[in-house]
Amino acid sequence: MSMPGGTAAERIAWARELMPVLTGIAEENLASRPFAGIRIGVCLHLEPKTAVLLSCLRELGAETFATGNFGTTQDDVVAYLDGEGFSVWGSRDDSASRHEQNKRRILEAEPHLLLDNGAELYSLVEPGRNSGLIGGTEETTTGGERLRESLELEIPVIVINDSPLKRIFENEIGVGQSILSTFQRVTNSTPAGREVVVIGFGWCGRGIANAFRATGARVSVVETDPVKAFDAAVHGYAVRELDDALDIGQIFITATGEPRVLPVSALRKMRTGAVVANAGHFGLEIDLEGLARECDRSRVSAEIERFKFEDGRSIFALVGGEMLNLAGGAGNPIEPMDMGLALQLLSLQWVAQKREQLEPGPQPVPEQIDASLASRMLIELSPPTSDGMKSRASSS
Amino acid sequence: MSMPGGTAAERIAWARELMPVLTGIAEENLASRPFAGIRIGVCLHLEPKTAVLLSCLRELGAETFATGNFGTTQDDVVAYLDGEGFSVWGSRDDSASRHEQNKRRILEAEPHLLLDNGAELYSLVEPGRNSGLIGGTEETTTGGERLRESLELEIPVIVINDSPLKRIFENEIGVGQSILSTFQRVTNSTPAGREVVVIGFGWCGRGIANAFRATGARVSVVETDPVKAFDAAVHGYAVRELDDALDIGQIFITATGEPRVLPVSALRKMRTGAVVANAGHFGLEIDLEGLARECDRSRVSAEIERFKFEDGRSIFALVGGEMLNLAGGAGNPIEPMDMGLALQLLSLQWVAQKREQLEPGPQPVPEQIDASLASRMLIELSPPTSDGMKSRASSS
Amino acid sequence: MSMPGGTAAERIAWARELMPVLTGIAEENLASRPFAGIRIGVCLHLEPKTAVLLSCLRELGAETFATGNFGTTQDDVVAYLDGEGFSVWGSRDDSASRHEQNKRRILEAEPHLLLDNGAELYSLVEPGRNSGLIGGTEETTTGGERLRESLELEIPVIVINDSPLKRIFENEIGVGQSILSTFQRVTNSTPAGREVVVIGFGWCGRGIANAFRATGARVSVVETDPVKAFDAAVHGYAVRELDDALDIGQIFITATGEPRVLPVSALRKMRTGAVVANAGHFGLEIDLEGLARECDRSRVSAEIERFKFEDGRSIFALVGGEMLNLAGGAGNPIEPMDMGLALQLLSLQWVAQKREQLEPGPQPVPEQIDASLASRMLIELSPPTSDGMKSRASSS
Amino acid sequence: MSMPGGTAAERIAWARELMPVLTGIAEENLASRPFAGIRIGVCLHLEPKTAVLLSCLRELGAETFATGNFGTTQDDVVAYLDGEGFSVWGSRDDSASRHEQNKRRILEAEPHLLLDNGAELYSLVEPGRNSGLIGGTEETTTGGERLRESLELEIPVIVINDSPLKRIFENEIGVGQSILSTFQRVTNSTPAGREVVVIGFGWCGRGIANAFRATGARVSVVETDPVKAFDAAVHGYAVRELDDALDIGQIFITATGEPRVLPVSALRKMRTGAVVANAGHFGLEIDLEGLARECDRSRVSAEIERFKFEDGRSIFALVGGEMLNLAGGAGNPIEPMDMGLALQLLSLQWVAQKREQLEPGPQPVPEQIDASLASRMLIELSPPTSDGMKSRASSS
Repeated sequence: MSMPGGTAAERIAWARELMPVLTGIAEENLASRPFAGIRIGVCLHLEPKTAVLLSCLRELGAETFATGNFGTTQDDVVAYLDGEGFSVWGSRDDSASRHEQNKRRILEAEPHLLLDNGAELYSLVEPGRNSGLIGGTEETTTGGERLRESLELEIPVIVINDSPLKRIFENEIGVGQSILSTFQRVTNSTPAGREVVVIGFGWCGRGIANAFRATGARVSVVETDPVKAFDAAVHGYAVRELDDALDIGQIFITATGEPRVLPVSALRKMRTGAVVANAGHFGLEIDLEGLARECDRSRVSAEIERFKFEDGRSIFALVGGEMLNLAGGAGNPIEPMDMGLALQLLSLQWVAQKREQLEPGPQPVPEQIDASLASRMLIELSPPTSDGMKSRASSS
Repeated sequence: MSMPGGTAAERIAWARELMPVLTGIAEENLASRPFAGIRIGVCLHLEPKTAVLLSCLRELGAETFATGNFGTTQDDVVAYLDGEGFSVWGSRDDSASRHEQNKRRILEAEPHLLLDNGAELYSLVEPGRNSGLIGGTEETTTGGERLRESLELEIPVIVINDSPLKRIFENEIGVGQSILSTFQRVTNSTPAGREVVVIGFGWCGRGIANAFRATGARVSVVETDPVKAFDAAVHGYAVRELDDALDIGQIFITATGEPRVLPVSALRKMRTGAVVANAGHFGLEIDLEGLARECDRSRVSAEIERFKFEDGRSIFALVGGEMLNLAGGAGNPIEPMDMGLALQLLSLQWVAQKREQLEPGPQPVPEQIDASLASRMLIELSPPTSDGMKSRASSS
Repeated sequence: MSMPGGTAAERIAWARELMPVLTGIAEENLASRPFAGIRIGVCLHLEPKTAVLLSCLRELGAETFATGNFGTTQDDVVAYLDGEGFSVWGSRDDSASRHEQNKRRILEAEPHLLLDNGAELYSLVEPGRNSGLIGGTEETTTGGERLRESLELEIPVIVINDSPLKRIFENEIGVGQSILSTFQRVTNSTPAGREVVVIGFGWCGRGIANAFRATGARVSVVETDPVKAFDAAVHGYAVRELDDALDIGQIFITATGEPRVLPVSALRKMRTGAVVANAGHFGLEIDLEGLARECDRSRVSAEIERFKFEDGRSIFALVGGEMLNLAGGAGNPIEPMDMGLALQLLSLQWVAQKREQLEPGPQPVPEQIDASLASRMLIELSPPTSDGMKSRASSS
Repeated sequence: MSMPGGTAAERIAWARELMPVLTGIAEENLASRPFAGIRIGVCLHLEPKTAVLLSCLRELGAETFATGNFGTTQDDVVAYLDGEGFSVWGSRDDSASRHEQNKRRILEAEPHLLLDNGAELYSLVEPGRNSGLIGGTEETTTGGERLRESLELEIPVIVINDSPLKRIFENEIGVGQSILSTFQRVTNSTPAGREVVVIGFGWCGRGIANAFRATGARVSVVETDPVKAFDAAVHGYAVRELDDALDIGQIFITATGEPRVLPVSALRKMRTGAVVANAGHFGLEIDLEGLARECDRSRVSAEIERFKFEDGRSIFALVGGEMLNLAGGAGNPIEPMDMGLALQLLSLQWVAQKREQLEPGPQPVPEQIDASLASRMLIELSPPTSDGMKSRASSS
């Protein structure tokens, strides 16, 4: 993992510099302390940007109990937070059972609110035992579906990922650009003049396709949903069946959210020298484990592996098929996270304040929050200058 | 109006060449004649592409009764259709009362289905008298809202404009590109190196902003909705308050759907030499009538007028503030209309066949229709070649 | 030919509005009258923009004698100029011999300077008889080569097309954009989602490729020079052999300057429905005459012809293979012409003033002229506003 | 310095994977050994890609004597080369005098050819003592000028940087993209929605401006050459005076090749939070040393420093003002270097073979070499597939 150099404290201080929205909201509400007396259970990627969120929640009166997602925890950030007196558990190399244990500890703290990622915490809630729980937020769409379909919780949960702001700035721009820049760093190469295949044309896939195209690559899109495929086609992408794309592609990026979209049978058909990487949340989109059973697998560099076929051809895989921007870099850029974590904070505050009036169940971010946050982002991202740019934001 | 040269028959024949989806659907259903015995009342822009739709509906068994929208009818197309035995009324210079009369004639034909634009026909339906009416389609979002809010019709109406296909291909790409190309033709100029201001960042405004930027213009966006404004900002547009944009802009395009977004007070503040044009459906976004009361208004060319202020400055307006691509050109490109009119035909067929099962009231295009049409567009737009491009579409 | 609507006087007045550089230079030099007593022979496309140049030359003291290039003269502009007392000959339908006669008339006027296009006038100069000739300008690179290789004139001739300003603004941007916008008007279509093939990746070809790609087309480039082909490839274009491109393309644009780059053998291999158009100076790049001998040729509209093969396939050709933006529109946008014609005026003035010091023979535009004109264009194209944009230009 | 992870051997092996042109040329000439008996003195950035060049030269018969440029040597690469039996001197922390000594050692080896960077070796040549020297190559334009102006060597020197291939692929694309991706990694941020100022619009500056704009930034250009400034303006950039840009910019990138283009007086006027970085060859474009005398300078992270003014404002500088992509990353992408180092190898071979026929003095890469290398790059970059892409290259 190559993060911007520096200690955890330095990296957190730098993230804070680029997070004026989240920290500004906290500052404005210091006096009213909206989370006074509230315990918040947190499960999310533990890294400098989320550390800033934990600080803000504490400044606003909350007591937090946090653990990282499986496999992405930055240990020096955990150590730093621990040193600052936060209740935080987990390390990068935790076993699955240890991770489970960490999550249970959070629920044992009897939180009033949960800030969850993938419904990992909600799925452990036992109605009888967590009677103090009044609601919370869920980061992902998948987590939202899980709440809708299998978990029958009688509390309001705001699903952050459904906000248009998040789709635009975090998924399309943040993921799209950081997948490209991490690809460039890890391989020290340029996609210019190459054939790139993006598998999945959701918001992340669209951002990735746009970013690679801007470098001078020719980008093909593989997408099973016909409306999305048509969208790609009239925006200049070559829409192909996976099988046809395998003949042509030199670089393959998966962004579907589905397991094994590049199965062994597909990997075997690629041209020699092809590079494969994954941009989806889970490291299961490319079946490298399956491939390793048929190939000679060897390390090329810290982040690149070669898979050599019997016939002499080789393909290369980046960061073991894990999400490229997180496993090979510092994840999403700070600015989209400033916005995404501000959405979290405002949504938690909304649940805390409106708990009586809200319907139970998963629900979208309230339009008022999207609108006020958009105005705020607009001005903080690029503060007004003498030419009147965005002074509209400053007056709203 | 500068249309591609040629007679009505020639222009219709050429449109047919570029409408393989609509004509292909008609051809495949010739035997089953899904509209046999059905009378369809039609109100839409009468020009070559819609003439092809009327032909297709007739081939499928329908009897059609049609009139044009106010002010956009192409008289030679009406004459051609009349010669072919269609019931069609209206001319470009119809008075408002004559236009009203044309619409009433359609309802007197006791149609079973309506294909409407702006709810012009639906608003004349009298429940008692039009008892044979089983439903229909509505082209515009505005028309859909009118149906929802003020017209209490107990029939299903599919609102075409809500389809994602239409937003992408007709609004963003079709309108965006044809506004630019008509601007270029009417002014014989390039926006390269200029300051362009796009007012409204809906789907049309986004398409216009993208198209002008691709020429080398610097594009500012004025948009009151903060989420849309933020979207514009992180895609590289300068988001400005209207007042600040007036100082800077050299070319202004309105695309809001709202009247008087450029009132006289704004027009007066523009730099000398500024050019204003409208891309919105109604010719009311720029208050040229108001301006004419304060300025010396004179013709520069057939499609350009000069408005001269007392202080010597002048600004220029294109096609009298009417929708630039329709009033100064041949409207939307044929391909998006092929798709949009196929949406119409398939939706009318859906209402005819499922009338029993559909809820009354305005409703979106069924997902099945969007999906199957997207697949079809994909293959017809760019038929598969030996490299396997889009063979996915051909197999679905 | 579809020009912006309006009379010749109106079109010339509008061109003048968008030509502040040329007219500004004229205005500043009114007092010194640098061309007083000088006769200038002129051969170029006679249309509104060049009419403005003739006016400016006259205002600066010159007596001009002008004819149009073969086949592109706008008769109403000639009539207008004639009415204004200019010596101007030629009409759109002139025979070759009549055109020859017009050019000879110019030389009989014993000009001191020539402003030529394609070395049409220089090739008629007889050293014995045109002893008063002191030099001049030549618009095209081809004309410059002709002067270099076969005409041994002992006078300085500045070759305008070699200026970097002209390559950037007139060839890349002006031609590139006007070929696209004329294509869109003539066909009423969008290239979005289509396969476009650009033949020739010089400055015009590059501009055309960029413009079509921005609409959402997938663009292939056919180019025999390997350095240019490589340039295209790393900027994201699919570089193909012509034969491979014929299988794939739906729209073909030639921009090579060479005759018969699309010979009959190539045209026969295209997919049915393919559209071909030419952007090169001469209407010889696509062998439509040859094709007509093997095909059924018929008119689709005023500007589109169908060529039908025996096997039932058809391809379509625009404006008979003539240069699309001139024969199907109003040619280059006004702003690049403002710059190009200012280059002409300043170069003629340079020759008139420095005649003693200049070497004989074809030579590039002096760097001082390029630099001062670039500064001027920068400020006139987008005059400074309160945010300081381009105030650099105003101070230089 | 954050390089792709891995040992020197691994990084060199990976570079070799992406350098099929250089290694392919070497392989084809193994038998003829064009450098048999030839000693080559080398001074260039010593890193994995140049290590591959040294290997290729040795495979072709040469004996090489190499040192790195000042301050950019990768020590583990030197150790690796030393272990492989290469004569190589230098380390990252060499003092200036030690660096001088290394260069002298090379000349003491009495090389027949030099491969130089910045004319560091040529300037030490003493005609009397280096009588065996027959010529060589020079990487940079600056070095070429130095040779032309102050060094009167009677040997042919091919200046690599003047090749159009190098301007396009190494300067525009390679530098442009790696400056952006290194910026993104070092700051973990996105420029989307920000005001970026690029100072200098040469080939590198153009590439940087294009790359940042593609992320959604608004890019201004500061450029004193009016022709280049005009080029920027008609390609959509806001051209500004430096003073005006200081008010507006949030991110500043210098790419001029000139010292102190951002002097202390300019740095003092920037908005708080501004980030400055340098893309020019020398770390002198931003006067951070001067600024440090007036400011509180502190480390934010390993690669970011804060400069705090007395009034409380802060600006941030990346990698101490050194060339961002080299000092903060792994330098140019491998593919442009494959091409650039192949240009070196072929040019050295040209000098060795044609020594008799070549004029003395600095001279451009022969057109034959550019053309043949462009063809080769085209096919190696993206080998032909069944759809015929670039089969043109394979046949030439």
